[in-house]
Amino acid sequence: MKFNEALETIKTYEAGKPIELVVREFGIEPKDVVKLASNENPKGCSPLVSKAIAENAHKAFLYPDDSMFELKDALSSKFSVTDKNIIIGAGSDQVLEFVSRALLMPNDKVLMSKVTFAMYEIYAKQMGAEIIRTPSYQHIVEEFIDAYNKHKPKIIYLCTPNNPTGDATSKEDILKIINAVDKETLVVVDGAYMEYAAAKDKKYSIRPNDLVEFDNVIYLGTFSKAYGLGGMRVGYGIANEGLIHELYKMRPPFNITTLSLLGAIEACKDEAFVEDSIALHTQEIKRYEAFANELGFKYIESYTNFITYLFDEKQNSTEISDRLLKEGVIIRNLASYGLNGVRITIGTKEQNDRLFSLLRKVLS
Amino acid sequence: MKFNEALETIKTYEAGKPIELVVREFGIEPKDVVKLASNENPKGCSPLVSKAIAENAHKAFLYPDDSMFELKDALSSKFSVTDKNIIIGAGSDQVLEFVSRALLMPNDKVLMSKVTFAMYEIYAKQMGAEIIRTPSYQHIVEEFIDAYNKHKPKIIYLCTPNNPTGDATSKEDILKIINAVDKETLVVVDGAYMEYAAAKDKKYSIRPNDLVEFDNVIYLGTFSKAYGLGGMRVGYGIANEGLIHELYKMRPPFNITTLSLLGAIEACKDEAFVEDSIALHTQEIKRYEAFANELGFKYIESYTNFITYLFDEKQNSTEISDRLLKEGVIIRNLASYGLNGVRITIGTKEQNDRLFSLLRKVLS
Repeated sequence: MKFNEALETIKTYEAGKPIELVVREFGIEPKDVVKLASNENPKGCSPLVSKAIAENAHKAFLYPDDSMFELKDALSSKFSVTDKNIIIGAGSDQVLEFVSRALLMPNDKVLMSKVTFAMYEIYAKQMGAEIIRTPSYQHIVEEFIDAYNKHKPKIIYLCTPNNPTGDATSKEDILKIINAVDKETLVVVDGAYMEYAAAKDKKYSIRPNDLVEFDNVIYLGTFSKAYGLGGMRVGYGIANEGLIHELYKMRPPFNITTLSLLGAIEACKDEAFVEDSIALHTQEIKRYEAFANELGFKYIESYTNFITYLFDEKQNSTEISDRLLKEGVIIRNLASYGLNGVRITIGTKEQNDRLFSLLRKVLS
Repeated sequence: MKFNEALETIKTYEAGKPIELVVREFGIEPKDVVKLASNENPKGCSPLVSKAIAENAHKAFLYPDDSMFELKDALSSKFSVTDKNIIIGAGSDQVLEFVSRALLMPNDKVLMSKVTFAMYEIYAKQMGAEIIRTPSYQHIVEEFIDAYNKHKPKIIYLCTPNNPTGDATSKEDILKIINAVDKETLVVVDGAYMEYAAAKDKKYSIRPNDLVEFDNVIYLGTFSKAYGLGGMRVGYGIANEGLIHELYKMRPPFNITTLSLLGAIEACKDEAFVEDSIALHTQEIKRYEAFANELGFKYIESYTNFITYLFDEKQNSTEISDRLLKEGVIIRNLASYGLNGVRITIGTKEQNDRLFSLLRKVLS
């Protein structure tokens, strides 16, 4: 059989290693595994959410309300937009997929920063598009505008705060880039970790309603990070009605589960949980900064729920990650992103203590 | 912005109406709504599944094991195939999407029966493919072979038992079609309702291991119907390793939820639940046949968990469905499939009693 030519260049996504794998491969008890690799919320999810899921577990047989009326209603209120501005995805990932499939044709170009979320490239390559990257991992306005003028990409991906680096781009800079491109280019503003950046410094705070007036901009948000629903796969895209209408043509019916829908609706009712999560994070990340300073290696200032440590030539990120893994601590090696560094999710106090003590041993 | 041209011809899928909509639009209490529209299992799901989901609800924050090791292991044992023969989708729907995206280019052709599962057409159209249909809604071997020889489609969809009609195609006939096409055409054997057909008459029973030897055949199965997990979105494709490897390139990471994965693993441990579901179904569907005979309209003999009633010119399927809906009973109108008929999921005894009494009123 002849497959779509685009398949020839596709690498599949390297997911953070699951607890189950460490249990299987290294014979470590599940309770002794510390997973700081996938930027899950160390506080778990809101008790409202887990209660609602547990109480409605018997509804697993029922298809969800595919209009997602109640969830859209909650998001509409939260962001002062209408339900017609919203599309729900199985994670904001799936909205990225809709965008890619609705817009890209073979040999179209897409633009992104040097180091950013891996799925932009994968979804674009699935459509046969060419990947253009700016020279820096940070989102530098001039670099984006230069590359835009030179390549006229169909899509520009702006990830702020950026994953897997943790740095953020100010709202002012994001708007400069948006205003420099014409209406034939879609700008994706991926705010998967926005709650953390907004809490840290207002100048990085971007809300979807800031962007909905543009015909060619979509904002992506997720319940996977600050809301603690990574395993439930719920994210959203917010944009003008016309764009959402077109993206809907690529949405499969029932694209989130019945319990995911219910969980996300409950999560919207518990903003205090998000605030508590960020408070824990804010306290614990200081310890990660102090640890790096003490041991003498660099880190990227983080506006997310993880921190990126960068090593010099004396240390090797693959070796460090592998040694931690064998002890049951999972972090994310960034070698595949071209960085001699690791991305570590900020965990609970106890998880972080374990990481520090182990990393101290490995680095000494 | 210029969208992908394929979007111009796409209609979105018309989902069965959810209970929530009937509650909102007609002010009926949720407990009084009877949904017989989406072929959910009226027994719900296995108690093992709902127990496991309830007990693990707090794990909603954790991404699933993306290797799906344990679920593949269960399916491997069940079907005597290896884990490399299996791809998991968010419903078998998503596997259909992978197939479509991995194989189709604009203007390729796909072949299916006159009336069959709507998503084949939608996913093919998303890729710009042309839809060819045989003259009959039943899968007639000669019709498929004639159309194959004439059009040389890239994909042939065989839905057995067929949805939304309920008829089935024998294993012998399916193999005749498979053996008549060359290796450049993929044959999709969609067995979403296979458990019901296999229980009714062995000659319709097709198992994925019967097909895995062919390079150009994929079998699709689901946990949504007999296993009662429609709301959790878990299905699978089983095929030779090479084909699965290519389809994997279109699979997004974490494409089913943590609780869906866990639920499907538990569901595999409770085949007795499936047997009980089929026993209830077998008993209740006889009442649907007797009801049609008594009231003097036709039905298609069903090998699925639903029955299709066909009306003559004196009755109108849209009017009948609408009148039932206003009373809180949701069935599926087949007008959009070009049939003056309705598809009704076989419910519990009580649900079926309500349907009969209401339909009797409406038809008199």
